[in-house]
Amino acid sequence: LPAEAAPSFLWVPELAVEPGAVELSLEESHYLARVCRARPGDQVFATDGRGRLAELRILSLGRRARAEVERIERSDRRRRAWVWCGAPEGRRADWLVEKLAELGIEAWQPLECERARWRNSQGVIERWRRLAVAALRQSRRRFLMEIRPPVTLEEAAGTIPEGSLRWLADAAGGRGGAPPAGAACAIGVVGPAAGFSAGERDRLAALGFQAMCLADGRLRSETAALAWAAWWALGEA
Amino acid sequence: LPAEAAPSFLWVPELAVEPGAVELSLEESHYLARVCRARPGDQVFATDGRGRLAELRILSLGRRARAEVERIERSDRRRRAWVWCGAPEGRRADWLVEKLAELGIEAWQPLECERARWRNSQGVIERWRRLAVAALRQSRRRFLMEIRPPVTLEEAAGTIPEGSLRWLADAAGGRGGAPPAGAACAIGVVGPAAGFSAGERDRLAALGFQAMCLADGRLRSETAALAWAAWWALGEA
Repeated sequence: LPAEAAPSFLWVPELAVEPGAVELSLEESHYLARVCRARPGDQVFATDGRGRLAELRILSLGRRARAEVERIERSDRRRRAWVWCGAPEGRRADWLVEKLAELGIEAWQPLECERARWRNSQGVIERWRRLAVAALRQSRRRFLMEIRPPVTLEEAAGTIPEGSLRWLADAAGGRGGAPPAGAACAIGVVGPAAGFSAGERDRLAALGFQAMCLADGRLRSETAALAWAAWWALGEA
Repeated sequence: LPAEAAPSFLWVPELAVEPGAVELSLEESHYLARVCRARPGDQVFATDGRGRLAELRILSLGRRARAEVERIERSDRRRRAWVWCGAPEGRRADWLVEKLAELGIEAWQPLECERARWRNSQGVIERWRRLAVAALRQSRRRFLMEIRPPVTLEEAAGTIPEGSLRWLADAAGGRGGAPPAGAACAIGVVGPAAGFSAGERDRLAALGFQAMCLADGRLRSETAALAWAAWWALGEA
């Protein structure tokens, strides 16, 4: 079957609390009717973005579509990775967010750095959240990538989970070897376009981040972030 | 030093044939003056995109800048990879071309597929070439990524170098293991948004392309192409 023929895949965060029939949001109703061109009676898949996967049967379309949950199951995340990233140039973070979500990254954490600040606005966060939802549908994932607002390195340091694995994208580092397997959270850190300051680098080293070279040339911030995520995505559960 | 303070890096394809003073193209002259904000007397680096790296001293700026070649050396390519790719949706190939060039891919080969054709126009090829030049400057590489016009699978098959290594991005494949080392050409093939047809898949298998799973979810064409390239870029010479 060509990929387009696969059943549609929706993001329905309220899935968990309504086990029988579910009313879809304005956005998912629109997506279902206009993008998927679904019909009443069609079967579609839906996730709550927190591990649940359901088979739905469409009851009605319209401004708010309705569907019957025919089967639902839940699974835990088997692998976890966060990407901390200084600001790249321009709007280059947008496609990065989309690609990280496709690759299965758990959380996107923009970092405020000494040499580059994010243009922080609610509009940016909302746009990233929409991109993460679109990527979730596209890649048929059960977990929605979390979009975190920009924080300083010290604030981010306070969120590091116990036992996590830590890498810093750095052309001066060694090659990373095989990607990590198993459930420990992996954190990949990438500096802004102008690089981390010496103080930030010292702090990252003290936090246990290990320098890792991702390619034999200089990479833009967003390319390094994506290359790290692609490497991580090659690992197995 | 912050990255911006590094000497400017130019693409000067005529470098080889003029060993003394060199006159820069309109585009590089503009880039040097307006983007790099260079001054006469500054030292800059330049490559011909075919392995030569030169240290130049700027003699004069203006519409056609002039520079003196102070040192020049040449090296061979130590690793080679080609990406063959069916058409993704919309203009998603643009940033893919940029990222593949940053990662050091040797040649970008768009594939005409049964389920998707490229909107083939000279304008697209020219835009991709400009993106490849910008990425070459950015990543300070000695080799310009070659932009090939779209061809059919059979035409592409006729270009496969002897002894090359061949992968097909395919969620049903196994994990790829360690990236290849050494000078053999690696070819990564990715289907269009709608996937390869059964006939195309059979042909690729007959050509020795090995299915490789790049992530645990469904990837868009451009994401799969980039993930394959990032994996390849982790290999050593």
